[in-house]
Amino acid sequence: MERENQQTSIPSALIETDAAIIGAGPVGLFQVFALGLLEIQAHVIDALPHVGGQPAALYAGKPIYDIPAIPECSGRALIERLMRQAAPFAPRFHLGRQVQTLQRQPDGRWLLGADDGLALLARVVVIAAGVGAFQPKRLRVAGIDAFERRQLFYGVDDPARFVSRRLVITGGGDSALDWAIHFAALAEYAPASITLLHRRNGFTAADASVARLRALCDANRLRFMVGQISGFEQSDGKLTALQVTSPDGINTPLAVDTLLVFHGLTPRLGPIADWQLALERKQLAVDTEKFQTNQPGIFAVGDINTYPGKQKLILCGFHEATLAAHAARAIIAPEQEGRLQYSTGDARLQRLIGGGH
Amino acid sequence: MERENQQTSIPSALIETDAAIIGAGPVGLFQVFALGLLEIQAHVIDALPHVGGQPAALYAGKPIYDIPAIPECSGRALIERLMRQAAPFAPRFHLGRQVQTLQRQPDGRWLLGADDGLALLARVVVIAAGVGAFQPKRLRVAGIDAFERRQLFYGVDDPARFVSRRLVITGGGDSALDWAIHFAALAEYAPASITLLHRRNGFTAADASVARLRALCDANRLRFMVGQISGFEQSDGKLTALQVTSPDGINTPLAVDTLLVFHGLTPRLGPIADWQLALERKQLAVDTEKFQTNQPGIFAVGDINTYPGKQKLILCGFHEATLAAHAARAIIAPEQEGRLQYSTGDARLQRLIGGGH
Repeated sequence: MERENQQTSIPSALIETDAAIIGAGPVGLFQVFALGLLEIQAHVIDALPHVGGQPAALYAGKPIYDIPAIPECSGRALIERLMRQAAPFAPRFHLGRQVQTLQRQPDGRWLLGADDGLALLARVVVIAAGVGAFQPKRLRVAGIDAFERRQLFYGVDDPARFVSRRLVITGGGDSALDWAIHFAALAEYAPASITLLHRRNGFTAADASVARLRALCDANRLRFMVGQISGFEQSDGKLTALQVTSPDGINTPLAVDTLLVFHGLTPRLGPIADWQLALERKQLAVDTEKFQTNQPGIFAVGDINTYPGKQKLILCGFHEATLAAHAARAIIAPEQEGRLQYSTGDARLQRLIGGGH
Repeated sequence: MERENQQTSIPSALIETDAAIIGAGPVGLFQVFALGLLEIQAHVIDALPHVGGQPAALYAGKPIYDIPAIPECSGRALIERLMRQAAPFAPRFHLGRQVQTLQRQPDGRWLLGADDGLALLARVVVIAAGVGAFQPKRLRVAGIDAFERRQLFYGVDDPARFVSRRLVITGGGDSALDWAIHFAALAEYAPASITLLHRRNGFTAADASVARLRALCDANRLRFMVGQISGFEQSDGKLTALQVTSPDGINTPLAVDTLLVFHGLTPRLGPIADWQLALERKQLAVDTEKFQTNQPGIFAVGDINTYPGKQKLILCGFHEATLAAHAARAIIAPEQEGRLQYSTGDARLQRLIGGGH
């Protein structure tokens, strides 16, 4: 059982499920709940290493005003609420993996292949991929790519590799500040030094994070520097220093062992474009009865779909997920067609969800 | 100005507005917000004397589980949240009035006439009337209707008329208990006596209300009696006593001055059926791009509409209200077509709503 089968094309892990959801953003999370109400269990895959999609990645600390009956909440709070609501249905998450292939099987099911060998065999697939898979914006300095995954990183997978190193973090958003604060606040296993580098003296992060950053700078726990990386020095194949150019054009060398880059995320439609699904201006075309694509059993909900009247709003995705769930149920359990209807405040709903309260 | 013009058909009050919303339930309230985001002000009319529609009238104290990102809340709390969200747009409410007539004017606007003479002249109308106008279920005892509005009431319009009277309240739901508790807890202007009459020894009301009721009974502030009204006695045209029949068939007279009946609400489509709107099985047929009826400028959202895939869920009504708002904007301010788009977390949104925070 320890040995991996590498000689054949059998995937290293094959999971059979009723429903696979691509995308763990707000609409993907509500899709878990909408399917769960109809007693359909789901696996969820997302390219990001965390749930929450755009609200978690791009406006975690910023207020959202247009979620019905929630006059104001942050992106982070919205995701926490949706996770709590989905929890009774015990979704299985596969994070940090991008679905590469989607192929119809002879029995009508769909085989999803992810970039790390994970394979899901699902009766229905709901694509809730927002604007596509988020990829970190890359540092554009000639030759520096050679150090990627050794000294240059676009995310923290293993915090241990930063211990006692001279760490440089570049960026001015929530991710850059959150990680700078995280490492600067460590009592043990801390980096040898921490420098936060940003192109200007100002941040696009939560006020509380900026205040915390300033306090840590005042306490000499980290150093803030204004400038952009314009080059680097190396020795014996190792990155040793960055060349930092200030806004007024002065170059300064900055010693470095590990470099963390948080320059934001760029969405890419990616492999979805290759799945033989009908597209309209890079969106998946769906009907408004089932939110199904041109392939039976493949649904698309949220910002990735289009139809007459489409508004790219989270609340519209919630509606789409609900109707897609009913259509998915007709595929998965056609004998229950017409049963399992529910209405707000219904007793069955209470049993399914409220039982644990 | 004091004199009412009763000689002509000019309405006693004519209000001109961009949008009129029929129905102050959850979807009607969110319609206020969705229009407000597009800078369209609305007047809201409802047949009930309070906002909130079904959640407020039928499950105020009961938990709702299927509002996205709100794992659990009561009907009452849902309405409070929607009222708070709509508040920045200062909706004008006209409650306890039923719209009787809806007529297209030569200039394309719509004239709504309510049963009390109120008239609204609107560029667009959104019907968010749920299952129709709620009417109280009537007491079925031969001849007792003659006392209606004098000694028999289906709601409390003027609490003063109950002072020092022998009050009988009948019903076992939230409304009956809430009013019994209200009157029993009064220190001044209280009724002479209060009897709560219900057909069985058990209630369909919030646990806290039942506990409060029991405590008030123990303190002799009110009396609870099991039985149904089967007849009455009168003297000089006044109702003097009810005949109450117990579950085992024993009749007891119960002296009464005022009788409050809370036997639930029955929805009736009512005058809407006469407005030349396309119906499918008593629902208003709409498209899924604008949620417009067969009449231009008349939209229908929430439980009252139907289209392929329709689910009667509040969250679907929220989506419908949003798309209807965009379509309404195209009628009211066609020159702004394509402008005023917004996305979650948008700066304009923040200015419109968040400014006061």
